[in-house]
Amino acid sequence: MKLIMQKSALKEEFQEVGSVGLVKTHSFTFAQTPEEMVLESGARLGPITLAYETYGELDAKKQNAILICHALSGDAHVAGYHSKNDPKPGWWNNMVGPGRPFDTRKYFVICSNIIGGCQGSTGPGSPNPATGKPYGLEFPILTVADMVKAQRELVQHLGISRLLNVVGGSLGGMQALQWAVSFPELVKTATLLATTSKLSAQGIAFNEVSRRAIMADPKWQRGDYYDRPDRPDDGLALARMIAHITYLSEQSLHDKFGRRLQDQDRLGDSFSTEFQVESYLHHQGDVFIKRFDANSYLYISKAIDYFDLTRHGELSLAQALRGVKSKFLVVAFKSDWLYPAEQSKEIVRALKKNNAEVTYALVDAPYGHDSFLLPNSTLEEMIVNFLGQNYRR
Amino acid sequence: MKLIMQKSALKEEFQEVGSVGLVKTHSFTFAQTPEEMVLESGARLGPITLAYETYGELDAKKQNAILICHALSGDAHVAGYHSKNDPKPGWWNNMVGPGRPFDTRKYFVICSNIIGGCQGSTGPGSPNPATGKPYGLEFPILTVADMVKAQRELVQHLGISRLLNVVGGSLGGMQALQWAVSFPELVKTATLLATTSKLSAQGIAFNEVSRRAIMADPKWQRGDYYDRPDRPDDGLALARMIAHITYLSEQSLHDKFGRRLQDQDRLGDSFSTEFQVESYLHHQGDVFIKRFDANSYLYISKAIDYFDLTRHGELSLAQALRGVKSKFLVVAFKSDWLYPAEQSKEIVRALKKNNAEVTYALVDAPYGHDSFLLPNSTLEEMIVNFLGQNYRR
Repeated sequence: MKLIMQKSALKEEFQEVGSVGLVKTHSFTFAQTPEEMVLESGARLGPITLAYETYGELDAKKQNAILICHALSGDAHVAGYHSKNDPKPGWWNNMVGPGRPFDTRKYFVICSNIIGGCQGSTGPGSPNPATGKPYGLEFPILTVADMVKAQRELVQHLGISRLLNVVGGSLGGMQALQWAVSFPELVKTATLLATTSKLSAQGIAFNEVSRRAIMADPKWQRGDYYDRPDRPDDGLALARMIAHITYLSEQSLHDKFGRRLQDQDRLGDSFSTEFQVESYLHHQGDVFIKRFDANSYLYISKAIDYFDLTRHGELSLAQALRGVKSKFLVVAFKSDWLYPAEQSKEIVRALKKNNAEVTYALVDAPYGHDSFLLPNSTLEEMIVNFLGQNYRR
Repeated sequence: MKLIMQKSALKEEFQEVGSVGLVKTHSFTFAQTPEEMVLESGARLGPITLAYETYGELDAKKQNAILICHALSGDAHVAGYHSKNDPKPGWWNNMVGPGRPFDTRKYFVICSNIIGGCQGSTGPGSPNPATGKPYGLEFPILTVADMVKAQRELVQHLGISRLLNVVGGSLGGMQALQWAVSFPELVKTATLLATTSKLSAQGIAFNEVSRRAIMADPKWQRGDYYDRPDRPDDGLALARMIAHITYLSEQSLHDKFGRRLQDQDRLGDSFSTEFQVESYLHHQGDVFIKRFDANSYLYISKAIDYFDLTRHGELSLAQALRGVKSKFLVVAFKSDWLYPAEQSKEIVRALKKNNAEVTYALVDAPYGHDSFLLPNSTLEEMIVNFLGQNYRR
């Protein structure tokens, strides 16, 4: 009887139409001593492990590979479930699977955790071969170009000489754009969602207060907390809470929470009185610290701030994009105030100056910067069409 | 010789045309035991001291008094200098003085530090008469109505039975609106700048992460830090940095700092690399902790969140404003995303439903929420005209 119930529950779970089902994270290690990877700063990093997942099958001509690049807090687990009891699927589950926009019946989909990350790829929490202890702040400063250079090793390892599409939102979009610049021959098409060629002063400011929240936590210990009983959870939670506000639009916060109170029906007379929006943010912070590393947050957010293809104004953006050979789909979201549409348009203009083939769309989704992560039929259709136009079996 | 140089410097300093010159902060104490003031929560607070400044002279008929209400981080020192060597004038110096919009040749201008504050008025850092020690978190939760109720005691003490104008921006505007609701007979006109009848969910969210920055600082000690060697400076500085970003527009941050680097001409390879905008925020935090108290920040920001004349939706805003008898000038600023113009318009609509005389203006200043604090000829002209229309000597 018990067995039957389990089977029935299992059946129900995987009746999710279009799911890739049970998936595994793999890992690939390269840049072994003394062949370390040379970073943009000149520092050397190795060995490097990349955690990655793949969905679907590589076709015979190896022309159907799509690389998904994740954003600040993402990881390699884009779609499907890690176990039968996994409460949550991957972070872009609605987009990847049989019949979904990144259709795994047609495409071979790859995603790797970026270097600097904390979900299986080499980052500040990994052992420093020079000491045997976790790197902490001994980890070198990273750039988006470094993340992409490491991904390229994985793509080569998988036997792929040209990617059908590189796609990502936010930091993921920066990576996709960097891919098209660093390896123009390898990128047939690129899809840039809710991204920019350089973060605004306001964006840098928010990243900096988030970093300061971490670094002001006494448990951060200048990044050397891995062997201690406590981690800088308070600081990391606060960093996430700050950032989370910037990912949403005022309208979506209003629609979701307004000024409604949590577990109360009138204002109280103490600091424990909570609006629902406060409670929601606390929850976001609490959940985040269970899956993320504070030093990774520092390194990755700094890489976002540093990203600037114009080499800090040395070139125009059009000059910076001179060598690109990809076709582009660029999508901005109306309510995204952190990566505003104007910044996407700037990329589009610079690409057009280089006679690149570009499709630009401004999607009227109300969820702010997070819009690219949420189900949206307009976005889904655009991706289906863009991929379909550029892939013939 | 030395004396002559001093005189000459002094002369130069007070050649600032239109300055009120040297001013003093006064104080007024009331609500002595057992006649404490009853707060909106039902708690009792007393004795209460209000620090205040006045500029100009009360006319014979006592009809020229203007009450300025300050915002979260403001104080009673609106204009002029506290000493000959005072490096900075009051926070709205450009607006108050002979020949300035609040013309001290015509008007008697008052400003008091709000209760809950830390610049001379009774707040969480003041001695609790029950214990003789600073209140800390024993201080009662405050509302905007409580702040206004205390100000009314001061106005009565000054012998004024009707105010020509109550004016303020942000939290100051909330107070001005509350004045018109709590004491309709006492407020001839009210000027509401960059304010709202209730803060948005996004505004509450930013206030909450600022409070959390303070409360996560181990030196905060649940508010009981006054007798300790260290104060929660890191937390308070971070709170200010977060809030400061929300006071400025993306455009003004871009114009002021863009992505320019501080003391460097290229990106470095460590966390010490700083963009100018980061350095600016750090400076804002460092300056703030020298003049502000962390517990005051908690209490006042909470009062801002709580402010809601509709009694948490029990009434419509029009119903809540039913008793007002003042004329209103309501001014919003286009680039203010924290207190967006729509919220000012909502007040205007509700006032008009009550047949109140309202002038509304949307000013095209680029500086975000802070626009109301910065010199702006449009704003100045509107204030001059509005006051002039409502005051005859």
